[in-house]
Amino acid sequence: MKNSQDSALRERAARVIPGGMYGHQSTALMPDGFPQFFTKAEGTRITDADGNEYIDYMCAYGPNLFGYNHPDIARAISAQQLKVDAATGPSPLIVDLAEAMVGMVTHADWAMFCKNGGDATMMALMIARAYRGKRKVLVAKKAYHGAMPWNTPRPAGVLPEDRAHLIYFDYNDPQALEDAAKEAGDDLAGIFAAPFRHDTFADQSMPDREYAQAARRIADKYDALLIVDDVRAGFRICRDCSWEAIGVRPDLSAWGKTLGNGQPISALLGNDRARAAASKIFVTGSFWFAAVPMAAALETMRLIRETEYLEHMTMIGESFRQGLASQAADSGFGLRQTGPVTLPMVLFEDDPDFRIGYAFCQAALQRGVYLSPYHNMFMNAAMTCSDIAQTLEATGAAFEDIKRSRASLKPSAALTALADA
Amino acid sequence: MKNSQDSALRERAARVIPGGMYGHQSTALMPDGFPQFFTKAEGTRITDADGNEYIDYMCAYGPNLFGYNHPDIARAISAQQLKVDAATGPSPLIVDLAEAMVGMVTHADWAMFCKNGGDATMMALMIARAYRGKRKVLVAKKAYHGAMPWNTPRPAGVLPEDRAHLIYFDYNDPQALEDAAKEAGDDLAGIFAAPFRHDTFADQSMPDREYAQAARRIADKYDALLIVDDVRAGFRICRDCSWEAIGVRPDLSAWGKTLGNGQPISALLGNDRARAAASKIFVTGSFWFAAVPMAAALETMRLIRETEYLEHMTMIGESFRQGLASQAADSGFGLRQTGPVTLPMVLFEDDPDFRIGYAFCQAALQRGVYLSPYHNMFMNAAMTCSDIAQTLEATGAAFEDIKRSRASLKPSAALTALADA
Repeated sequence: MKNSQDSALRERAARVIPGGMYGHQSTALMPDGFPQFFTKAEGTRITDADGNEYIDYMCAYGPNLFGYNHPDIARAISAQQLKVDAATGPSPLIVDLAEAMVGMVTHADWAMFCKNGGDATMMALMIARAYRGKRKVLVAKKAYHGAMPWNTPRPAGVLPEDRAHLIYFDYNDPQALEDAAKEAGDDLAGIFAAPFRHDTFADQSMPDREYAQAARRIADKYDALLIVDDVRAGFRICRDCSWEAIGVRPDLSAWGKTLGNGQPISALLGNDRARAAASKIFVTGSFWFAAVPMAAALETMRLIRETEYLEHMTMIGESFRQGLASQAADSGFGLRQTGPVTLPMVLFEDDPDFRIGYAFCQAALQRGVYLSPYHNMFMNAAMTCSDIAQTLEATGAAFEDIKRSRASLKPSAALTALADA
Repeated sequence: MKNSQDSALRERAARVIPGGMYGHQSTALMPDGFPQFFTKAEGTRITDADGNEYIDYMCAYGPNLFGYNHPDIARAISAQQLKVDAATGPSPLIVDLAEAMVGMVTHADWAMFCKNGGDATMMALMIARAYRGKRKVLVAKKAYHGAMPWNTPRPAGVLPEDRAHLIYFDYNDPQALEDAAKEAGDDLAGIFAAPFRHDTFADQSMPDREYAQAARRIADKYDALLIVDDVRAGFRICRDCSWEAIGVRPDLSAWGKTLGNGQPISALLGNDRARAAASKIFVTGSFWFAAVPMAAALETMRLIRETEYLEHMTMIGESFRQGLASQAADSGFGLRQTGPVTLPMVLFEDDPDFRIGYAFCQAALQRGVYLSPYHNMFMNAAMTCSDIAQTLEATGAAFEDIKRSRASLKPSAALTALADA
């Protein structure tokens, strides 16, 4: 596999970008040989700077829901660009989109739009505190809610004060939640709930109904706001807030990623209970009112409503999971496949330092399939049975590869350094 | 002037958006009759939902630098959309753009891209603290650096801890800066400097060279980072960091607004001194690596380098300022026009509750010119002498209007409510 262009770009990047790249799209923790730069994305495929094409199971880390450059959405974007995008005020599309989302998400009575998923979770934090003037917010340990001082997973540049009134609890443990709420007492402002546990380097777990119900009951008891952070999972589990499926309605839900199928837009939705607090906070951004991402989001909402995308993606996700499971069994590997099939997490048994998973993903990459060994993956609705067949051909060969090389595999140097840090 | 569509949209918005609208593009504080929604933006003009067209002196609150939907930039956007936008990694354009900005901004050795101006100032805050593990950051009173808990201008949803280690000083006062630094002592991490004072409802003021030099000297003395927040003013004062014009180089500069002429992109630039700290923080966003806004930014950079846009915009800004000054004198009003001519602030003498300024802007709006009575305005490079002539015709009539109605003007109810709050 050629990588000379990617290498040359990395050398240039090392000079003008700190650490060569930053954030979640840095390949610093990926297996050696994973390309850093892409020059093309179409449908289910991405192409790197050296012209290598991959079936992409990361979907831009979520946004790609209907296939890159989906024709209907591309048309909506082009049409809107001729009218107005960022201007001195919003376009009427902000009203259309707020109505569309309120119509689709059961718990929601209103919407506010922004750019980053982290903007939406930050607004939720502020609204929870503005709601009754209380301070304490409960957050599940290791849950990812963005990368600001109050929630970034790394300590550099963060002060203890940035997290002074956060109380951490174990996900899916109603008693831990109850204890955390007691600790907050009269000062409990809000509870952050990930729709399911999707930490990196760990099995995913779906929420127990009992846990979700406890979160709702505790929020009500303390007159605090319940927040579901659907930024990562939104519209990949249901056509509503992800907890609607288990019958628990939050006061606030944070959305992003898939909302405009790749266009930069995120949202906070809320109910009438939270409306007054939401209108008191001052939050904004230079491009939050731009119309083009809203046009893309309206077309994405239409596709969500009018197509069987979710059923199709679920079927495709199941065949991917089943195919991997049977290949793993055939080649003598134990796989742990957790979470929703539309957001697959694939980890190997007996692989404490991830060396098997890393080698497996390298071997799949060499055969044109881009998987992640440590982050949940994402299915998209453009994937076909033929894509899955092609994927499984590659992963079948990858299992054979790692079966042969198993004894000589070494752990990832970057991962070892991270674990030691 | 028709406004039935705008009114109908406001009624719908009041149901599905908290307070009917939020953030800096809410017209809540604007004079009555200012439209909330726009359906078209082209060149120097915006059109509201009722079809009324205005010469726009707000330029999307900054982003519109070369005219809305500039053909060269629109072409760059369309071409890039066919290749890749948001994907599983950045495109090579992130390297091209980092090189272009480092080549243009003298103090900068590296660049990181993000979406909101507030992302860039937040990164500066975190890097200043990561740099030597110190905590205190100096910020000018009332300066706007974004709308997160640490810097939003309204108190709702904000805790004292969010600002625990900020120390406020008076802009342009070297002694106040020195005193604040002494208060921070060994714990001084950074100094935020607006390129010039551009608070709302107040005269702008340019930085004294002595003040800017003091900021640099103090940062060096305490081994802290000096940050210039150029989000609002960038590329409207010079083709470099705004303080380059007075010979003072920061360690970090925050950029946004004009960078992609309306496409959603902002940036933090820094020097080698700040590089290690910048590579330690973990910051990211779903759409930070998207290629289309970078393609727009590269084309915007090219126009900045290769055209006389700044000289033209300055000339146009001067004729706007001179025209207003002479009309004001002729009609017996005192005007205070402050700040750079490319970011004009126009306030009336003897107008403590802004009733004259509000009435003036209303009268201009009725004649097709969109001005702000309380926020600095923005010139763009597409404006022509004929636009200024048309504008001055409208403002001339507006001065006549308010001269006639002066005795009966009433203060804005929204503004009175804000002052009382």
